[in-house]
Parts: sequence; C-alpha cells; structure tokens
Amino acid sequence: MTAQLARKIHLLLATCRPACCNCSTCRRMVQTTAAMFNFLLKMALRSRPPTRAELASAEVLVTTAPLLGSTLYSLPRLQWAQLTFAGVEKLMQFYQPDKPAPPFAVTRMASTAFSRELAEWVLAAVLGHERGFGRLWAAQRRRAWTQSTYTYRPVSELTIGVLGTGQMGREVGLLFKKLGCTVNGLSRTEKTADDAFDNMFTSDHLSEFLRSADYLCSVLPSTPSTRHLLTAARLADLPRRPVLVNAGRGDLITERELVAALRVGSLSGAVLDVFENRAAAGRTANSGTWSRWVTISPHVANLSRPELVCAAFLENLERFTGGRPLLHRVEWDRGY
Amino acid sequence: MTAQLARKIHLLLATCRPACCNCSTCRRMVQTTAAMFNFLLKMALRSRPPTRAELASAEVLVTTAPLLGSTLYSLPRLQWAQLTFAGVEKLMQFYQPDKPAPPFAVTRMASTAFSRELAEWVLAAVLGHERGFGRLWAAQRRRAWTQSTYTYRPVSELTIGVLGTGQMGREVGLLFKKLGCTVNGLSRTEKTADDAFDNMFTSDHLSEFLRSADYLCSVLPSTPSTRHLLTAARLADLPRRPVLVNAGRGDLITERELVAALRVGSLSGAVLDVFENRAAAGRTANSGTWSRWVTISPHVANLSRPELVCAAFLENLERFTGGRPLLHRVEWDRGY
Repeated sequence: MTAQLARKIHLLLATCRPACCNCSTCRRMVQTTAAMFNFLLKMALRSRPPTRAELASAEVLVTTAPLLGSTLYSLPRLQWAQLTFAGVEKLMQFYQPDKPAPPFAVTRMASTAFSRELAEWVLAAVLGHERGFGRLWAAQRRRAWTQSTYTYRPVSELTIGVLGTGQMGREVGLLFKKLGCTVNGLSRTEKTADDAFDNMFTSDHLSEFLRSADYLCSVLPSTPSTRHLLTAARLADLPRRPVLVNAGRGDLITERELVAALRVGSLSGAVLDVFENRAAAGRTANSGTWSRWVTISPHVANLSRPELVCAAFLENLERFTGGRPLLHRVEWDRGY
Repeated sequence: MTAQLARKIHLLLATCRPACCNCSTCRRMVQTTAAMFNFLLKMALRSRPPTRAELASAEVLVTTAPLLGSTLYSLPRLQWAQLTFAGVEKLMQFYQPDKPAPPFAVTRMASTAFSRELAEWVLAAVLGHERGFGRLWAAQRRRAWTQSTYTYRPVSELTIGVLGTGQMGREVGLLFKKLGCTVNGLSRTEKTADDAFDNMFTSDHLSEFLRSADYLCSVLPSTPSTRHLLTAARLADLPRRPVLVNAGRGDLITERELVAALRVGSLSGAVLDVFENRAAAGRTANSGTWSRWVTISPHVANLSRPELVCAAFLENLERFTGGRPLLHRVEWDRGY
C-alpha cells in the first residue's frame, strides 16, 4: 500500500487506495504509513491541485471543502472524502438538495487534539480579556501605569456559555470545568448535563442561556439555523454584559448588529477569530468601536496542521478498511 | 468582641483585641464578625494612617509592610501583625539582625484563593504569549491579517518551569498540571515531586532546570538568595529559548541582563508583572527591545482585595484565639 499511497497523493488534494481488508497485515500497514503519510501530506498541502483525471480515478480523497464542492457530482469512483478543515459551508454551497445526494461519505476534520487546540484558544481569549492584556498593551504603548483602574474576577466565579455542544464545544466545556467555572451549553437538541457541562439549554431557552453567561463562547458551524442566531435585540438586557468569544463561524452575528450590541453595552467586548466578511473586518479592525472593544484573531484558533489532519485521516482510514462507521461524517440534510 | 473590634479598627492599619478564649461563643463571634470586618477593612484601607498612640496600644494589627517596618521596634503590646500583601522586603529593610528579633508574630498575606488568582494571571500570560495575542493586537492596529506566520504549540506539549514551590508556586503548578503540561519546580530545599510538580530541582541544578523549560514562571520573593538569581550568562544556551513570566519580585534579574538575554535570543520573550525599577520600566516599556519582546503588567497579577485580606486574617485570627500556630508566618532570619 505504501508505494501506491505515495504515487496517488497529490498536492493540495491527496488520493490513496485503501488497504484491501482489515487483516492484521493491512492494519499494520495503515499504522506504519502514518509517518510517511504525514510527510507526503505536508508536501501535498503546498503544491499543485489534482487534474480532473486524477480526481475521476480516486477512491479516497483528502481534500478541502471548496475543491471537493467544485467537483461534487463528477467523482464516479469516490467512496470517501476526508476534509482538511472543520467547516463545510463552502462544500454545502455546491450541494443540490433536489438531486440524489452524493453516494460517497464525507468526513469533516475533527479530532480530540484538534478540538482541544481550539478550546485552548478560547481559554486564552477569555483569560486574556478578563485580565485586560489588551488594555495593558495599549497602556504599554502610552508608557502608562494603569494599576488603579484594574479589576478582574477569579476564574472560578465565571459562568461560561458555550454555543455548540459537539466535540469542539465539549472540549471547551471540559477545559473551563477543570478551572472551576460554571459551564452552560447551548445545544440544538435536548441533552443532559455531563462532565463537560453543568447545565444544558436548547434554543427554546436561548434568552435564559444568554442571561446566565459572563462569556459567550461560540464554536457553532454555519448552518441555516445558526446563521444570524445572535442579534442586538436578542443580546439586549443581559445583566452580566457578557463578552462574545467567537471561534465558530462569523455569520453567527452580523457586523452591524455586533457593533450595535457593543455600543449600547449589551456586550462588554468581543474576541473574534472569525468574521462574516473578513475583508471588512480587516479594514475596520482599528477604527472606533472595533479598536475599543474588539480583539481580532485571523482565523487561527486551531490550525489544521498536517500532523493533525494525518492523525484524523488515519483514524478514519482504519475504520474505512475495517468496514466500520466513519467518525465526524457530514450529513447533507443537516448542513454540517 | 464585635464592638471592641469596630472601635479599634483604624484606617490603613486595623487593630483588634482578640476573643478571650477558644470557647464556642468566642469562635462564633470570630465567624460572625467576618462580614462586618470586611466592611471595616474596606474603609480602613482607604483612610488615614493610625496615630502613634493607637499603634502603641495595639495587640493585633492588620497593616502594610512599610507601615509595620517604620514602627517595628516601638510596639510594646503587639502580639501579632497580619500584613495585607505577600511581599515582605519593605518590612525587612527595617529589621536589624543585631538587635533581638521583634517578639511578635508577623504573617504574610497568603491564602489559597490569593495564590490561585496569581496562578490564573500566570496562565493568562502563558496562553496569551503562546497564542500571540500581543502580535495580533499589533496587527489589528496596522489592519493587517497575519495568518501566514502564525504558529503555536498545544498546551500539553509545554514544559512549565516554576521558580518557587511554596503556596503560590504550588497553585501555579496545579493549574498547569490540570491542562496536561509537564511542570518542573525550582525549590530552595530538597523536595519530592507531587501533584503540583512532575520534577523538582534545587538551585544546585539550576541550569538543568532552566534548560528543561518552555516557560520560566517565577513567583519567588525578594531575598538575598533570589536577588539577581537569573543572569544573561545563566540564561545562555537554553535550547528551548523560554519565555520569562515574572509574577514574583522584579529583582530576580536586572533590566540590563534581561535585555541582553532577549537580544541574543536566550529568552524569546518576557511577560513581567514586577520590575526591579518600576519607574524605569514605565519609561522604557515602549522602546526597542521592550516593545518587541516584553509585555508589561502593572503589578496586578493578584490584587490584595479586602475580602481576601479579610478571609486570610480571619483564618489566622481563629488560630490566634485558639492558641494554634499561625499560617504564613514571616521568619526573620530567612528574610520572608
């Protein structure tokens, strides 16, 4: 399989033929190709896109969402596509609900390590905001010593509201629970509290959820039900004036509504890794409301590092060769 | 006791007469005065200093180190002084080793909550530095989108070197251990690894300790043995080019040696809550090496909030009235 794998891995998109069965030899081969695959994937992520002919012959693909989308209905031999990032909205743009769904499986980039790294960014954002490092840097530039106005809350007194309770939301919840925070989760479907969440809310109780939080941390994907979920009106009258920390997708709230909520003080700040319109965010990032209350981070909360993509792919490859269900499979009708 | 306590609490310095014995009535009184004492202490911390006569009559004091120092040998009735901050170097300036040591007990401000808040600042500093929020803010000011050069390490891959393994160091260690880091402790005396530290080093193995760390986090007090412990020479040839995070005392390293270590790249950055010379740090904070590699924080890692001072005092007051040993007692010959 090694030589085949090496020949078939292409560029930004990598293809491979899986092992023939789930015998111990094949499984060992899957394991021992990890290091080589990691190297090849690094190369692949840096070079030319595959040709149409290469795509048409592929049985398994490791690819990005826009590339897969652009060729979604012309992959005759494809059995499974592993995406290299978590978001699938750029794949969904190409999906046509009136046509039969593509017959192959698509799996999103996800793994405990990948989710944990996102959770660590959220923790860095929350602690950095609570301890005012943004204001400290501004003071340092002015050569000012601003101790007198300095306040913070102990971490254990904070209530963290996590929007999204899938694998990423769970890692965020677990991390804050370790630090003694109260963690509330907002979930699409009814769920019960567990080791990652003290309390669970469904969108029927959105306003109760929003009122309970000191920090609103979103890891939500972009789907019809999450797009513009937060509005200035929904954020009004929140007694704790929470800080929005967005590591999910930028269309959770429009820039206009976000600025409105910050201006009237419904939100007391925002740390944003994602934006509905990245170009606009770049232009406005140092002006007025944005420079005063918003910290922007250029979509780096968790990077799809080759070793993480490789680990996620190999985990699913073992399942694929063994005929077991794949993890983190995209559901066309749910939109992620 | 309540009325007596109320009468005798003064200003920045508070005095009180302890309950007469350790009977359940007295102990309950100690407990029920907590709320009132908290209020009085808040007032006390904001108003006039005590008179000489008030000091001369005090049996118990809640005071700052410089105030206690200035009257160290003229407190005839004093049995115990509780300090409102952790550092005692400004008290030690007044201590005269050739005279008999003051006959009363002095206890430093310390409690699990107080130490934990310092540990949370250290965590905020480490995560903020690892995720490059300083560079992100600089990019935001320039309206730049700097994703391409962005890297970070997962928290669990970091080795945290903690200088100081007392209560504060332990809280730092425990917090990083919860996040899966390897935590090494540098201790004055031989200690064994425990739930806060994976490995313990004494100063005999300082260079081994320094070489092992990605972050060097100091919570050391200022004593003859910690002053200028770090030098550019001792920091040379550290393979991991650690970041110095100082939440202890600023005289751990001179400004000159720190700048030298940053310039040659022995250290890859510094987050400093304390300075040998605060005025100089304020002046230079936005210039050259400092603005490029150093984040300054104006001695706010853990604030002696009245409720924390009150809790620490009341914990020791119960011990005092019960004739039990006081916690966090200053040892004159050790210097803290």
